[in-house]
Amino acid sequence: MTPHGTVETPAFMPVGTLAAVKGLTPDQLRAAGAQMVLANTYHLALRPGADVVAELGGLHGFMGWDGPILTDSGGFQVFSLAKLAQLDDEQVVFRSHIDGSLLELSPERAVEIQQQLGADCIMCLDECPPSDAAPEKIKAAVDRTTRWATRCRDAQTRDDQALFGIVQGGTDLSLRERSAEGLLPLDFAGYAVGGLSVGEPPPEMYRILDGTVPMLPTDRPRYLMGVGTPTDLLEAVSRGIDLFDCVMPTRNGRNATAFTSGGVVRLRNKKHQRESAPLDPECDCYVCKQFSLGYLRHLFIAREMLGPILISLHNIAYYQRLLRDLRKAIQSQTVTEFRSVRLAGWNVSS
Amino acid sequence: MTPHGTVETPAFMPVGTLAAVKGLTPDQLRAAGAQMVLANTYHLALRPGADVVAELGGLHGFMGWDGPILTDSGGFQVFSLAKLAQLDDEQVVFRSHIDGSLLELSPERAVEIQQQLGADCIMCLDECPPSDAAPEKIKAAVDRTTRWATRCRDAQTRDDQALFGIVQGGTDLSLRERSAEGLLPLDFAGYAVGGLSVGEPPPEMYRILDGTVPMLPTDRPRYLMGVGTPTDLLEAVSRGIDLFDCVMPTRNGRNATAFTSGGVVRLRNKKHQRESAPLDPECDCYVCKQFSLGYLRHLFIAREMLGPILISLHNIAYYQRLLRDLRKAIQSQTVTEFRSVRLAGWNVSS
Repeated sequence: MTPHGTVETPAFMPVGTLAAVKGLTPDQLRAAGAQMVLANTYHLALRPGADVVAELGGLHGFMGWDGPILTDSGGFQVFSLAKLAQLDDEQVVFRSHIDGSLLELSPERAVEIQQQLGADCIMCLDECPPSDAAPEKIKAAVDRTTRWATRCRDAQTRDDQALFGIVQGGTDLSLRERSAEGLLPLDFAGYAVGGLSVGEPPPEMYRILDGTVPMLPTDRPRYLMGVGTPTDLLEAVSRGIDLFDCVMPTRNGRNATAFTSGGVVRLRNKKHQRESAPLDPECDCYVCKQFSLGYLRHLFIAREMLGPILISLHNIAYYQRLLRDLRKAIQSQTVTEFRSVRLAGWNVSS
Repeated sequence: MTPHGTVETPAFMPVGTLAAVKGLTPDQLRAAGAQMVLANTYHLALRPGADVVAELGGLHGFMGWDGPILTDSGGFQVFSLAKLAQLDDEQVVFRSHIDGSLLELSPERAVEIQQQLGADCIMCLDECPPSDAAPEKIKAAVDRTTRWATRCRDAQTRDDQALFGIVQGGTDLSLRERSAEGLLPLDFAGYAVGGLSVGEPPPEMYRILDGTVPMLPTDRPRYLMGVGTPTDLLEAVSRGIDLFDCVMPTRNGRNATAFTSGGVVRLRNKKHQRESAPLDPECDCYVCKQFSLGYLRHLFIAREMLGPILISLHNIAYYQRLLRDLRKAIQSQTVTEFRSVRLAGWNVSS
């Protein structure tokens, strides 16, 4: 439960990096079944600035979404998008990917920005080393992430935002354990698993989840950051994950790739030209109720922006329906069968 | 009244060139007040082909719009977009602007394609000479357009589509009269005024409307093709025009330019950065009810595709509201005052 409503878990959060889920209005998101969305601290701090967002009503008012919102801490973007200038225990200094200007982010500043943005759930600043970093470096990042988590907790002054800790440790379960052991005494409102889906093979990720999720309290949401494919979601929910975010449904939608009950559909394929059936006959979303697959293909071939919009919308609805079905399967204790049936159904792609 | 519903006039048709109004769903169009949309014969014949549209339910089923639709004849595009290869009384031969392939369009073929597309209102094929063509050339185009109009009427086999004639004649009122006199005996369901808003100054267009509209029967819709700005609409409705289409609300919307009750607003302007008021406080559209001007500016600065979508949507709603207000002013016989008040209000722009 959040100040902006209840989120039924497991839940998938569409990504609104810059306070907008690309191409979709809040009304369309709501109609597609989205309960909660994610926005990006790093990007919003750069543009338009957290003070502007605060002045324009905080994130909820700013982006016109009155449901729950989560903001990440900016850590992942600082360590992946920006050019690092300096990193020590005090803070990370980096260059903006937009104009190269020199900026600083500390645990205190990450919390301050997120308090200005005003999301319902906010994240501790974490150090995200590259996936191929040396074990010693990953261990140092785990320890720094723990120290930063304490500072984030101490910096928090608003009491209406749920602060999450982030478990790091790469693909080394002993480091994951070290990370969890450092964070659990801080009694966060939720726990995220970070540093996965960054290039490792899916079985590696599932192995880490097998080991890590049981370390986290079952009475707090467990959030797998930046994941993933429909298969990833099935596998992670089966392992106890409650919350996801990923750009995949919208990014793939813009690139003419749709998720359907029969597997992945590539919209530009010539064979769809005269197809009068919907994209996914089992889907009840606006796009599948309203348009033929042939029309959707036409939109991409003709480079109409409505194509990326509609397939993004369908993909979001697809993800929401998958999670809804998973919630039902959990209640009826049929997750194992549900997973087998779905995985088999996705083997066909077109 | 059309097979797909009644259109209250004067009416503005959003342009869905390729069977999609750029960036907007049929639901959004409907909510913005659109009654009837336009689609483009030339573009659809090239891509995906009229046979594909017919197979996928005709234009209404294809684009998911169950309201009235009008298709132009393709004449304007053939004479502006395509490279002309040959023009005689029989037909026009041109090269596709997409792949350079050689194609033909005759009056009979223009009607055949439009019958396959299945719009409620269809247009005769007309010859559209450049606006700076010699008087003799414009006169010849008028006469050919009249001969082609006869052939279009004779070619029509469906009885559920209203065929419109197109008055040509450039800025020469005697040629406009010659055109109208040639077309009126053919007893078309509606009459369009073509060849305007092609570069001539607005007062020239208004002068031609002053002279031309009274030549056309008052019991048939009079349609001013490809027009125009809000001012053009006010001026043309005052002169008896019933129907409009123009890409301006959507094209300007994509280019960060909004029409408002206070005049034109350029979204990228820095001064809007912290503006918490809506884009147009007098507008009741989704965009103005849901978002601040500061947020809309942010979307354009951040290059979020939601910016072009939302301003297109607002601009369509703005046009629809203008026409709705004009219909009320006509009923209360206050068009002259209404025009003065609106023109004065638009003098402020930001």
